Order: sequence, then structure tokens, then C-alpha cells
Amino acid sequence: MQLGVCYYPEQWPDTMWADDARRMVDMGITHVRIAEFAWSRMEPRAGVYEWAWLDRAIDTLAGAGLKIVLGTPTASPPRWLVEAIPDMLPVRADGTTWNYGSRRHYDICSEPYRRECVRITEAMAARYGAHPAVVAWQTDNELGCHETVPSYSNAARQRFREWLARRYETVGELNTRWGNVFWSMEYPSFDSIELPNLTPTDANPIHLLDFRRFMSDEVASFHREQAEVVRRHAPHADVLHNFMGFFTTFDHYRFASNGSIDVATWDSYPIARTEVIALAEADKARYARTGHPDVSAFDHDRYRGIGHDRFWVMEQEAGPVNWAPWNPVPAPGMVRLWAYEAFAHGAELVSYFRWRQAPFAQEQMHSGLHLPDNTPSPGGREVARAAQEIAKSAELSALAQSGPAGRAPVALVFDYETQWMFEIQRHAKDFDYQTLAFEYYRTLREMSLDVDIVSAHADLDGYALIVVPGLAVLPPGFVDTVRRSGAQWVIGPRTGSKTLDFAIPSELPPGPLQTLLPFKVLEVDSLRPSLQPSTTLGGVSGIALHWREHLETRDGVEVLARFDDGWPAVVARDRVRYASAWFDPPLHRALLEAAARDASLNPVHLPEGVRIRRRGPLTFAFNFGAQAVEAPAPANARFVLGSRTLGTADVCVWTQA
Amino acid sequence: MQLGVCYYPEQWPDTMWADDARRMVDMGITHVRIAEFAWSRMEPRAGVYEWAWLDRAIDTLAGAGLKIVLGTPTASPPRWLVEAIPDMLPVRADGTTWNYGSRRHYDICSEPYRRECVRITEAMAARYGAHPAVVAWQTDNELGCHETVPSYSNAARQRFREWLARRYETVGELNTRWGNVFWSMEYPSFDSIELPNLTPTDANPIHLLDFRRFMSDEVASFHREQAEVVRRHAPHADVLHNFMGFFTTFDHYRFASNGSIDVATWDSYPIARTEVIALAEADKARYARTGHPDVSAFDHDRYRGIGHDRFWVMEQEAGPVNWAPWNPVPAPGMVRLWAYEAFAHGAELVSYFRWRQAPFAQEQMHSGLHLPDNTPSPGGREVARAAQEIAKSAELSALAQSGPAGRAPVALVFDYETQWMFEIQRHAKDFDYQTLAFEYYRTLREMSLDVDIVSAHADLDGYALIVVPGLAVLPPGFVDTVRRSGAQWVIGPRTGSKTLDFAIPSELPPGPLQTLLPFKVLEVDSLRPSLQPSTTLGGVSGIALHWREHLETRDGVEVLARFDDGWPAVVARDRVRYASAWFDPPLHRALLEAAARDASLNPVHLPEGVRIRRRGPLTFAFNFGAQAVEAPAPANARFVLGSRTLGTADVCVWTQA
Amino acid sequence: MQLGVCYYPEQWPDTMWADDARRMVDMGITHVRIAEFAWSRMEPRAGVYEWAWLDRAIDTLAGAGLKIVLGTPTASPPRWLVEAIPDMLPVRADGTTWNYGSRRHYDICSEPYRRECVRITEAMAARYGAHPAVVAWQTDNELGCHETVPSYSNAARQRFREWLARRYETVGELNTRWGNVFWSMEYPSFDSIELPNLTPTDANPIHLLDFRRFMSDEVASFHREQAEVVRRHAPHADVLHNFMGFFTTFDHYRFASNGSIDVATWDSYPIARTEVIALAEADKARYARTGHPDVSAFDHDRYRGIGHDRFWVMEQEAGPVNWAPWNPVPAPGMVRLWAYEAFAHGAELVSYFRWRQAPFAQEQMHSGLHLPDNTPSPGGREVARAAQEIAKSAELSALAQSGPAGRAPVALVFDYETQWMFEIQRHAKDFDYQTLAFEYYRTLREMSLDVDIVSAHADLDGYALIVVPGLAVLPPGFVDTVRRSGAQWVIGPRTGSKTLDFAIPSELPPGPLQTLLPFKVLEVDSLRPSLQPSTTLGGVSGIALHWREHLETRDGVEVLARFDDGWPAVVARDRVRYASAWFDPPLHRALLEAAARDASLNPVHLPEGVRIRRRGPLTFAFNFGAQAVEAPAPANARFVLGSRTLGTADVCVWTQA
Repeated sequence: MQLGVCYYPEQWPDTMWADDARRMVDMGITHVRIAEFAWSRMEPRAGVYEWAWLDRAIDTLAGAGLKIVLGTPTASPPRWLVEAIPDMLPVRADGTTWNYGSRRHYDICSEPYRRECVRITEAMAARYGAHPAVVAWQTDNELGCHETVPSYSNAARQRFREWLARRYETVGELNTRWGNVFWSMEYPSFDSIELPNLTPTDANPIHLLDFRRFMSDEVASFHREQAEVVRRHAPHADVLHNFMGFFTTFDHYRFASNGSIDVATWDSYPIARTEVIALAEADKARYARTGHPDVSAFDHDRYRGIGHDRFWVMEQEAGPVNWAPWNPVPAPGMVRLWAYEAFAHGAELVSYFRWRQAPFAQEQMHSGLHLPDNTPSPGGREVARAAQEIAKSAELSALAQSGPAGRAPVALVFDYETQWMFEIQRHAKDFDYQTLAFEYYRTLREMSLDVDIVSAHADLDGYALIVVPGLAVLPPGFVDTVRRSGAQWVIGPRTGSKTLDFAIPSELPPGPLQTLLPFKVLEVDSLRPSLQPSTTLGGVSGIALHWREHLETRDGVEVLARFDDGWPAVVARDRVRYASAWFDPPLHRALLEAAARDASLNPVHLPEGVRIRRRGPLTFAFNFGAQAVEAPAPANARFVLGSRTLGTADVCVWTQA
Repeated sequence: MQLGVCYYPEQWPDTMWADDARRMVDMGITHVRIAEFAWSRMEPRAGVYEWAWLDRAIDTLAGAGLKIVLGTPTASPPRWLVEAIPDMLPVRADGTTWNYGSRRHYDICSEPYRRECVRITEAMAARYGAHPAVVAWQTDNELGCHETVPSYSNAARQRFREWLARRYETVGELNTRWGNVFWSMEYPSFDSIELPNLTPTDANPIHLLDFRRFMSDEVASFHREQAEVVRRHAPHADVLHNFMGFFTTFDHYRFASNGSIDVATWDSYPIARTEVIALAEADKARYARTGHPDVSAFDHDRYRGIGHDRFWVMEQEAGPVNWAPWNPVPAPGMVRLWAYEAFAHGAELVSYFRWRQAPFAQEQMHSGLHLPDNTPSPGGREVARAAQEIAKSAELSALAQSGPAGRAPVALVFDYETQWMFEIQRHAKDFDYQTLAFEYYRTLREMSLDVDIVSAHADLDGYALIVVPGLAVLPPGFVDTVRRSGAQWVIGPRTGSKTLDFAIPSELPPGPLQTLLPFKVLEVDSLRPSLQPSTTLGGVSGIALHWREHLETRDGVEVLARFDDGWPAVVARDRVRYASAWFDPPLHRALLEAAARDASLNPVHLPEGVRIRRRGPLTFAFNFGAQAVEAPAPANARFVLGSRTLGTADVCVWTQA
Repeated sequence: MQLGVCYYPEQWPDTMWADDARRMVDMGITHVRIAEFAWSRMEPRAGVYEWAWLDRAIDTLAGAGLKIVLGTPTASPPRWLVEAIPDMLPVRADGTTWNYGSRRHYDICSEPYRRECVRITEAMAARYGAHPAVVAWQTDNELGCHETVPSYSNAARQRFREWLARRYETVGELNTRWGNVFWSMEYPSFDSIELPNLTPTDANPIHLLDFRRFMSDEVASFHREQAEVVRRHAPHADVLHNFMGFFTTFDHYRFASNGSIDVATWDSYPIARTEVIALAEADKARYARTGHPDVSAFDHDRYRGIGHDRFWVMEQEAGPVNWAPWNPVPAPGMVRLWAYEAFAHGAELVSYFRWRQAPFAQEQMHSGLHLPDNTPSPGGREVARAAQEIAKSAELSALAQSGPAGRAPVALVFDYETQWMFEIQRHAKDFDYQTLAFEYYRTLREMSLDVDIVSAHADLDGYALIVVPGLAVLPPGFVDTVRRSGAQWVIGPRTGSKTLDFAIPSELPPGPLQTLLPFKVLEVDSLRPSLQPSTTLGGVSGIALHWREHLETRDGVEVLARFDDGWPAVVARDRVRYASAWFDPPLHRALLEAAARDASLNPVHLPEGVRIRRRGPLTFAFNFGAQAVEAPAPANARFVLGSRTLGTADVCVWTQA
């Protein structure tokens, strides 16, 4: 693993650049990302390019031995461009047009703007594509951020109609598959189809879903247009985009398909993320200064899958940020810990945001490796320490130069379309699929298991345990995969509950899974918090939350647990378990622990706040908790970093002697 | 009472129709409602009618012996029509225009759209008006649903001005009666009057009230235009509209006046309704799987009054629905119970929504009598059971064929304009008039009393006890009615507090009621939850909630109870009691129980969750509670259905031996 | 102190006027405010003035011996004017245009509307400027109320650009000082600058701040245009505007500068204000019928400073109002108490809103000195009592005729720009500067100290204790003022944290204060409620709330208290203390009490709900609490009003024997 940093030479006097570069190298940094918001400096007026400053910046950094990740500046179109193309501004679901004055003020469907993006990318790539220090290119920045996707513009409407025409060929086919006979929603032509916003009551769920599919494709093609330009000029560089945490607006698997990226990179802000996601208040309180122990790991494991085993952290939190409701100072040690955490999960690079805190503009309260007065920040000192530790340790250095992390024993299937479908049709207002997936993930991690997060279309061979927290539409062949697999399977509620056209399968849920597990879902019990059906599983008592299905089982399926009113809670056949409800943590643990044991894994209950991750010959242990603990290391462990006593916000690494 | 069902032949292959019809009859169903969303199939292009499928559907159903309720399809105008009349879309209070893509996408004030509605109604009525099986016509569907009324369109503005000109004749008269000298709001002409939305601070309350009156009239005239067409072609059919529960956007008494409908029908969804109305969380939790025991009864009794003793349930919940925040499965037995409940309250027909759950489009998670795979749903099995029970019982069958339910001993006055006035001027943010009326109603019902809900303009002769939970404006003659009545009266706060022009009466509240009860309201005490004035009434202690008045009493009025700070809580004279506050449940019970005893009624405290209702010679008892109870039947009761032990979600019926 | 009343002759038959005037005088009222909403009566059609009724009203009132405060009617432009200038309507941040139908329906940046305002003011002033009874002129009414400022109109955009051009001279200078290199926000010209609304993410904080500065200047110049007209015609009259409580939309110090007003007047509604501001629920509950003990005093003391020692209460609550979520009846005695409270804090005049409650239009539920039936209201009777008490007491009468209240021993610096900056950049979502200032104020008042609230630019000589609850930008010379001052200083967090251009100072916070207190703020710890760093100060334990800074101290600064994790909580040097956090009430008390003792003041802990205020030779004590208490008077006190036993909602006044 290597270290990087985000740097904005245009924001500082050029007299500082050489010193900055030298100190980056001194700190152990090898990569520096630049230029992704500098359009107004590269092209201050339409067609007037000013490269001199960027030439000098690149040469200064390269001269110090740094490798450069160059960003296309399309997330912040300059003012003159917006004035030239006024209808490039994005439109909100309520019909309001967003205005200039911050960033991401563009409609991803605007064809004139896309042409401008290709043009500036072409200009940059022509100039720097062959530069030996420029080893990677990032397109745009955090696509979809600030809810600018979806955009409900006229351009979106037009391109959505074209997308639908390609998908359905005839409007009659669309009317049939959408079920538009309902409420007289039949369209006379593709040109009659509106965007699904501002309807007096719910739009047709397949209308909403197809719009999300379309928008997801728009994001992917927006990237791809730039990626193709870059590849022409810089065939040997890595092409990438910096994704976000817990972000599901587009299908990252589809985005990353067909070689559109070489490595998946993402921006990791564990403390703010913990504050804003749907965690229990007790978790938010407990981990307010550390981030939840699984919140970054979840995305490390997800993006490692999306990147086909190659992933980077493009932006790593270096101290307090500015965008959550509250932004506490991380516990001392956490900035260092997060570096090792990414390392353990297989990151090739951890790049910090940002070299020096800017004293002006929107992110002045967002910390970096240095304070605005150019002294190292507390986080910056921790990064320097981690870099030195790795350099000094033969084992850590060796691992840092090794290849991909390798396959984990457990796979967890995460599916973006399922997220969209269950957002469109929550049925219980607190049902959120990603949260359910995260609950399964954290339960596995609390049992010390390493997890790969994978697509439903991934090759699932070789896993001992495969967890499907819910999969709305079973892909063709998926049931056969389950049938032929040697793994233990745990399948969650709502699996097989929909067709590709967002209808209930004719044989009822779980659809084709019935050929394997012979039961039907008769009714769905959407649970307000006061409704708490209880059950006991493997001696553990617990309740259902949010969602429960009434299953009618047939011969061949075994009922492992029933709710107090008699409905099945867990059914199984051979190596496949199906949970008919969203369980509370004790039941989820009982369910997964039994499956893990049947898979001959060795689930170990870690102390609260402790996580371990294996990579190569090394095992990393992390303590996000409030107390020092004994590391869950075997007696013969040899400590490469730290010791058996694992302090709070600390890490230790061992190898088996 | 008869059974019905809502059916959508256009949504299923015609090969299924005959079998569906046969099984409806087998199930005991006599009526089937069709066609109310099928405009795009009746008229796929402007002026091109396709009746063949509907002819066939009607003939198939009629051929099986079913009676047909035919719906005009105006709640779902097809796409081509919206494209032809773009400004027919409704406009929200914030100025946004609603878009096509679901239903109710029309402005009720659009004259071009109204002409289209008359045209399609004329076409349908001309074709099917004389069909012997078509026994009733429903206009539109759930007028006012999805907050599409009021609409703040240009058409609404124009018609509002015309409505005002008819009401006030001169703008000077309007300026005077509205008090427009205040804040220089004087209008130079009717054409200067704006809709009352988007004002920086409150619009004039009479401006808001007149706009609501106008919109209420618009809803009524929209219906009436269609009703008149139908009557010309189908003079012997019942004309009706399906109203909604707890819905006060228009004045249903005015809507139903002058013979505009023959029977009041409404759509009853007790579980979702319980979830969304302003009940205490404890009530929502307790009745999450049964619906609150009074939530349907309240509207049964209200619509029975609106229908002049004739009412139907046009849509009855048959299982979990899809539109509340949570949608739990009803407790086993409830679908059957609700049928008997409607029966006991006087329904002529209970019609289920819907025959078969649609696997596609917006309502795919809304259950019906059958699952999408065409097997009976749990609710469907309960309906079949109820039908068989009624058929088998001589007493139940006889009652099912009897006439109206007859007058109850207690009348509760409910007034739509009062609802509007107190919404416009809550003064305490949690004051809701319908909720107060419901509190009075439930208190009466918990004491085993049968209740008629009536208009303030209704004939009130013959009642033993009349409850007025608050009546903003006393109609002319109302005080004389009270004076001459032999009944006991309980009158709630805010009664007589306003004039027709939404002003405080010159003699102060309670306005003309002072001639009967000599007191004045000096000040109004709007109570935040922490303010809890306490009092004792008939030995029962309790507090005021939300609202309390400071009464200055004069000779001739007796103070029955005082608050701890000395202000009167209940005053009375002869047979008339006035409550100066919104009381908590114990005080409401003490107040109404005393009045009921004085009225020689026999209030009996029912067990929690139990309700009884008498109809003809039979008494029905319902158990919405969690425990089995002994039915509150006399010793000599003979049970026609069930037994003295009344299980949870169960019903029993007895006659006196 | 004198008494006044707000009166609306246009709303009542002229036959009532003479009687009203006579009874005002009988009641002890000397001043009457009229005409501020009567434009439609002064000028019913464009250019057609009707003065006769107003001549008569003024003569009737003056004839009875009353002095008149005449209001310009520009807060309620009549309908014909809005039709003549359609784009004079204000625009909300979401882009919606507010509509006619209430009041304040004007864009403060509209030049055509401003011309109309000058014209009507000129017409009024020409007619009444020389009238001997017209002793004061009020412009408009509650400028900025109902969030009509800021307005996001085209006119606002144009004038904002002009304002920026005047401030920065070149767009290059603006780009540099705004830091627009960030996110490519560089503007090619002033004409390219948008308003800072509707941006996908945060606008640049300096962009937002300059817009607020601009809008504040617009409010001031709107007033000034009218004030100049009035001064020409009525050179001897007082010019004023009625400000609001807890209102920070514009900089009242700047507004009041350069002689734009002669006296600061404000509208005091203590109960509704207590309900709507950010107080703890326990405080809202405790003081629901009295208003919080400091909520009016805070603005009395603030407006006394703004008015350069001259202040009035232009509108004083006389009973329940209509605009809070709940509007309870005040505890008996409070209307009288509030009169004495204003008196004690130095008010020259307390004027009641309103003479008689209007039974119609928007404020019909807003009480006055009389009920709508023209009998005195409970509040009206209390005012009459207070007037009689003052008239009867030689000491109170003498004080009522005395001059300004004189300087208090304690100054609290309140700064409007700090409010705006910390609203723009809360960083912790519950950080509100005015609330922090109020917390410091109430702590001082609970210790029986009299307080002046002053501008950061005020002359601070002569104070014993100066409290700065936070001051984002230190004005030039401020540090020298502190250095040279003989006072004790208590300085709160975030002081010196920004430059005038809303950037972090190059030397880090506290900026230039470092020359006096040598420490730097390394990081800011934004505290979610679950994070509660604790400390002990002077033996008192407590926690930090919302905000904490990590200070790096250098030699010369003493750490008076540290948090449990070692970071300094209070640092000091000589007479200057700096609090690094927002403290809970016990710690604030410990901090201020120590400083007060060092300042040789005598902080006395008053009983809960009791406050005292000294003016001239008299000390006033007020009891907002629920129990009678012994007044905190010295043994030799001689009671001028009331007695040593101070009942609830009561007042007593003593002088030292």
C-alpha cells in the first residue's frame, strides 16, 4: 500500500509548491492528485487555455519524485461556460433549476455540456497524456453528489424517451410490461412519456425504476465519454473515478463494467458517514470519535469487488470535516488506524484529503494534513507515523508491495437495483435495503469473518458461506448457482419478490427460488415499531423489525424457527436458509453463526468495537472501542506492529509464528 | 346487507372473466363495480370509442347474475387528453403544476376538462344506461384525494372570482364583510382578488374560508354535472360517489343535497386509517392489527346521515394495503368482523377492494380477495365465511333484507365548515375539530350508546341526547331548536365563536347561545402540552388539553365544575351543558355519562376494545381487543352468531329471548 | 415613563373615536400610534388622496390631549399599487414569488416601489409634519418580518451586483478576497454574480455573508429614504422604526447610525417569544404564562444600546396573542409586571398593542386593552392599575420623568455580523450565537447584575466587567481596547476566528487576540449531544455543549481549567479570560461569577424566576416564578411599591432608606 494526497496548487502561491512537494516525499507520500476543480484556471475564457501554471505544478511535483493523478475538472464548470449554455443547469425533482455558485451545477443529460467535457478532457489529455509522471486520470469528482443526479431537465426527458425506445422498441411493449392499463396510464408514443416526478400520487414503480436505470446509465456514459478520450492519449495510465461511501444512486457494477475503470477508488469519511447514515443512536454515540467499526470496511470490501480486486481510497479523512450535522475531532490514533484498516482490506493506495486546509471558501472548516498556517495537523502527524512504521517493518513493507488481497471465505451479495426497488416500494417506511445488508455485514464482521461484497452476477465459486440479504430480482441462472454451489447460503426477505419489470412473479415470491425452497409468500407484514413478533433460533430469542413475510411452506422445506403466532421465521433445505423477516441483532447473529459453523468457518465473538482482517500472512486487529482489550491473537502470534494489549483507537498486526 | 367487489376486467385476460364471475356468485357476492379507471380502454384515441370489451365484460358479469355498479373514468384521464388540454393539470398551493403519471391529474375547475368528463359520461350512459344489470353509477373516484383539491390554477382563480361576485354582488360588500380595511387589503374589483396561497403571512381567514367553500362547491358541481347526464339515461339507477374516511375537504352534506346522490358510499380502510390519523401512539399500537374500534364506525354513522339512511361501503379493506407508513397484516378474523360491523351500522352493501391483487403497477402491494396467483387470500376466505354465515342464519338473512337502520338515541352534530374554520385558525397548533368530535364519539361508543352523526341543519327531533362537539357558527334557529328540544344537550368549546363571515360575534362567543346560556368567553387559553389545568367533575379528576376558555358567567347559569384556578370548566342551565375546554378522556366520560343518565339512557362501560351496535331486533358485539371477553349480553340473550365468550377479532350477535 | 397605545381609527366607526380618545386619557395614556396600515384609506386609487378621515382622527385624538405617533403605511401597499408594479412582489429563497393577500408583499430592493414609498411619505409628511400633536413618525412596520427579507428578486440581484462593485471595485479583487479559485468559482464580471440561493451545495460563505450585509444595508436605506422626507417636513419630531425581538436579519447598529432614528422602539411579546426561541423545554414549560424572565429584558437592554439610551416599547403584549404555536393567557399580573420591567430597564414609553381587539381579519385572536365588545380586557385593567400606581407614587412619578437609565456595571457585546457568520457556518447544527449570548446574559442577570448590551464598536470605558460571548471578527483596535481597559473580560469561543472576508486568519484563531492571549485554536470539536467533555471550574463541575476548541497554549497564558482529556477549558492572562467552549449553565455561572468578583461586583444568586433591575434611586424586583419569595432587598429598604413578600407575577420597588 502506498500513500497519496490531494493537492490544489492553484490555491497557493507557486513559491510554496517546491517545499510542499519535498515535504510530501519526506512524509512517505508517493502519489498526488491535482487539478480536478481547476477549470477556471486551465481555461479562464472560452477556448483560451492557460497551461503554463499546470505545466509548472506538474513538473515541480514530478521533479520531487511524485506520481500524479490528474483530474478532469468537469465537476466545476466555470461561470463563462454556464453563461454560454444556460440550460446546462440541473433540475430538481420539484421542478426548480439549481443555480451557479458552488459545484456540480450541471445536468448530466446535457449534450452541449457533455461536448464541453469531452473538449476539456481532450485538451488536458493531449497535453499531459504522455507525461511519465501522470500515472492515473480521475474523471470528474464524486458523480451524483449533492443530489444533482437524477436531474429532471428537458434533456433528461428527451434522453429518457430515447433510452425507453431502445429498451422496449414499441410503446405497446412498454405499455404491456409496465402494466399501463392500470389507471389509464397507456402512452400513445414514446414522446408522450413524462419524467416520473410531480405526480399527485405514486408514479408507476417500473416507471420510477426505469428512470433510475436510465440515470445510472447516464452517469456511466458521462464517465465513459471522458475515459475514452483519456485512453487514446494515455493508454498506459490508470483510469478511475472517485466514488462515495454508502452511495447507491447509480449501479457501480455496471459503471465499472467493460473496462471503464482500471481501479475503483472512493472517498472515505468514517466519522461524518457514521453521523448521517441510519444507525441506532447508541451506535452513533459510541462511535462518534472513531466512526462505526464497519462503516469504512463495508465500502472497502464493496469497492474491492467493484474494482475487480483493485481499489484505492482517493480521499481519506485526516481530521474533522465540515459537512455533517456535527463534526467532532477524531479520537487520537484514528487517522493512523484508518490507514491500516484500508491496508488490511486490500487498498493499493490511501490518499489524504487534503495536503493543507484552505482558510477560505466552502471547505475552510475541513481539515487536512496541515493547518492553514502550514504546520502539520494532528492527523498529519499520525499519517507520518504510519508511513514510518510501514517503512521500518519488513513484513508490512512486503505486504504493501504485494498484489490483491485474495478471496475471503464469505461472500455478501449487494445489488443496486434491489436498493432502488425497495426505495421505490418501501412498504414499511423504515425498510432500507442497504441498511439490512449492512446489518448482515456487521454481524459477520463481529464474528471475525472476512467478507467479500459482490454482485449477484459475480462468480461465486469457492466461497464457504454466501449471504444474500435480499435480492429483488433473481438473475437468470441464479437458482442453479445456488443449487450447484457447495457453500452454505443465507437468504434474506424480499428475495425473488419482483420481476425485471417490477411486478410480483406469477408464482408469487420468492419466484424461481421456489424450485429450490418450496414455499410461497402469501402476505407481507409491514411492522410499525410497536409490532414485534418474537421467535427463538438456536436458543436465542429475538424479534422481527420492519418486515415479516407469511410463508406457506410445502413438503421439502424445514421450518427452523417459528414466530409466536406460528408463522415460519427461518426455513431451510439442505445448505440454504431463508429468513422470512428482518431480524434484530441477536437473531441475525444466531442465524449467521449457525450457517458459518456449517460452513466449517470459525466464528469468534470479538469484543465490542474490535475488528480483525487478514491479508496475506498478516492479521490486523483494530480497536474502535472505548477500552483497551487483549488482541484476539493466537498464543503463538508474533506481533509485527503493536502488541497483544490493544489500546483504544489503536491497531496491532501479527503473523503466526 | 349484500356483498360486492371491485373488479377490473381490463386488467386481466378475457378468458378469466367467466370463471371470475362464477366464483363471485359462489362466494355470495351480488354486486360488482367496474370501469372507473378504464378511460384509455373505452376511448384509446380522442373520439374513438371501443365498447366491445366492456360490452362483453358487462354481459359476462350480468350473465352470471351479478348487478353492476358502473364508474365514470374521470379520475384517470388518458394521456392523449392531457396532451390536448395541457392546462387541465392541477396546481399545488406552492405554485407547482402536478404532472401526468399516476391519477387525479386534473384541475377540478378546468372547464375544458369538465366538458370532456360530461362527454365520456354521456357516451357511457347512452350505451349502458338502459342495461338492466347496471343498477348504479359511480362518478369519478374519491374526489379530492391526493390533495389535488384545492387546485390553485388560473381556472380556479377565475371561477373563484365569479363565485365571490355571486356571493357578495359588489366588491364593496365583500371588502366590508371581509374586514379588508385591515392591512389595506381592500380590492378595487372582483378581478383583483387573488387565491389565498403564497402570502408572506396569514391570508385573511374569511378569504381562506370562502376559498374552501368555493372549492367544496366545485367538487359538488363536478359530480353533479355527471350525475345529471346519468339520470337522463338511467333514471332508475342509483347515482353515487365513493367518499373517503376522515375526509373533510368538501362539505359532504352540501354535496349530497338536492338529490345529487341516492346513496352515500365510502371506502373503508380501518388499519391504514388508524395509522395515519391523529390518535395517541398507545391507541395506534394497541389497534395496529384491528384498526381502532371507532375509526370505521365513525364514518359508517356519518355517511349513513349523509346518505339519508342509505349507505354502502364501496371499497372495504380485504387485507394489508400499500399506502400507510406501515401496512401490517390484519389480525385473523378482522376482515370478517368489518363486514358485520358495517352490517350492524346499517350498510346496504359491503363491497371489497378488490377481486384479485394486481401484480403490476402502483397497487401491487394492495391485497384483494385473491392473491395474484388467483388463489383466495386469507381475507377472501373470511369474506366467504361471513357470506355463508349470513345465508345460514334466518335472523341475519332477515336483517340483511330489511330497510334502514333507524334512528339512534344519541345524535352527534358534525359540521364541515367548523372543520375548515378551526383548521384556518387553530390558535393551538394541536387543535383539530374532527379529532375532538371523534373523542366525543368514542366516549359515547365506549359507553355502549348508538350514535347518529348529523348535520347542524338536520332535524334533531326525537333524540334523547344531542352532542355538539363545537360548532363555529350557529345556524339561524339553532338556539331555538335547543330551547324547544326535550333532549339533553352537551355543547363543546368554540361553539358560537364565529359569524358566517369568520368574525367574532359582536356580543362575543358563544354568540346567540348567550340567550340560552348567559355567559361570555373573555379570553381563550391555548394550551401547550405542559399546561394542564385540572378540574373534578362528578368525582372524576382530569385536565384540559389544547384549549380552554375563560368564561364570565351571569345569573342563570350554573357552574358544574371549576378549574383549579377558578375558571368554570362546565356550566349548565336546564338540559344544556357547555364544556369550556377540550377535556381528557376521563372528564369527557364523566360529562357525557351524566348527560346520558339525565336522558334516561343506560350507559354501560364496555371492556377495552369492545363495542356493541343494535340494528332491528339484533345486537352485535365486536371485540377489537387483545383478550377474549364475556359479551355484554343480557342473561336471556339468544345468540344468533357466536357465543357469550367473545374472542379477539371476533363478533357475536344476539336477540333478546 | 409614559404609556401609549396602538389605535386604528379606520377600523371603527368614527362615532367611537371621541369616546375612545377620552378613555385613553382617563387611563393614563399619553401617546397613540396610528395610520401604519391605512394606505388604502389614505390613497384609495393611484394619486387620489383622502385625508379628511385622518385629519378628523388626528384632531379628535389631539383634541383629547394625546400625542400622536404617525406611521408610514408602506408595510401594506394597496392592491391597486401591486397591480401597477407587478414585479414589486418579494421572491423567496426557493424562487417562488410571494403573492398579495396579507402584508409585507414587497421586495425591499424594488426601486419603483421605493419611489412609491417616498411619494406617500412625502404626501403624509407634507400634510401632518407641522401638526403640533404629531410628535413622532414611525417608518413602515417591523421591517424584515415574515421572512420577506432577504428577497431573491431580479432587483435584488441587480442591486447586489452594484453593491459588490462599490465594495470591491474590480471583479479581480472580489475573486481574490472571496477565494473564488476554489471550485472554479471565478467571475468574469460583476454582472455574472448570482444570488447565493439554489446552489446544489453550500455557496461560498463570503458570498452568503456579503449578501446578508447587502440586504441589511437595503433595509437601512429603505428606512432612511422615508426618514429623510419626514425630517424635511417635521424637523422636531422623533423619527423611529418599530424593531422586533430576537431579530437579527439586519444590523440594527448600522441601521441606527448617522442619526437615522432618534429613539429605538421595539415590539415586545414575551410569551409568544418564549414559545418560539431555542430555549430548553423545561424553561418553556416553567415560563409559559409569564415569558422567560430574560426574554424581554435582553431586548430592552439591547435596544437601549441601539437607541443610544433612548428606547420605547412600541407594541407591548396586553394578553394572549395569535401567532405562536400555542398562545396561553398570561398569568394574572404579568401585563402590569411587563410595564414595570420596561420602566426599570429605561423605557421612555410603553405603548400597548392594541386599544381594542378587532373581531375580523388576521388578528382577531390577538387581544388588546379592550375586548371586541369594547369592555376592558383583563390586560387592560392591569395597565390601568399600573398607570394609577405610578401616578400615586412620588418616587415612581419622579423616575418616570427622569432621563436615561445610565450606564450599567456590566457590558455584553452583541454583534450582528457574528450572528450571520455563525448561521452561515454553524459547523455544529445546534450552534446559535444569539442563544449563546442570551445564555451569558441570563447568567449575569441571575446573579443580579445590571447589563448594557453594546456593539463591538461602542465605547467600553467605565464598565467593570465586559463579556464578549463570541466575536467572529475583531474590529481594528479591539485588542488594544482590551489591553488598555481596566475591566475584567470574559471572552467566548469562536472569537477572532474569521477575517472580514470570512476566512480563517493566517495566524489561526483567535487571530489578533493572540497578541494578548498567546494561544492558537488547532482544531474545532463540534459536539453532538452525546459528546460531553467535562471539566471543573472553581469547584463547579460541568460539561461543554455544541462546541469546543483544542487550544495550543504558549507561555504567558494560564490554564484555569482543563477538560477530562486534557484540553484547556478556560485560559486567562491578567484580567482576560477565554472560554474555549460553550459551557453548560453551572460552568457559565462559575466563569462569570469569578470574573464579577474580580471586578468588585457583588453577584447575588437570585431565587429562580426572580430578577432585579436598578434605575436611578430605585430597585425593581420581579417574580416570574411560581412561588412567592422574599424580595432580595436590604434590611433598610423602603418599599415604594409592593412589599418584601413578592408574590408570583408581581413586582416590588424599593429605595434604600
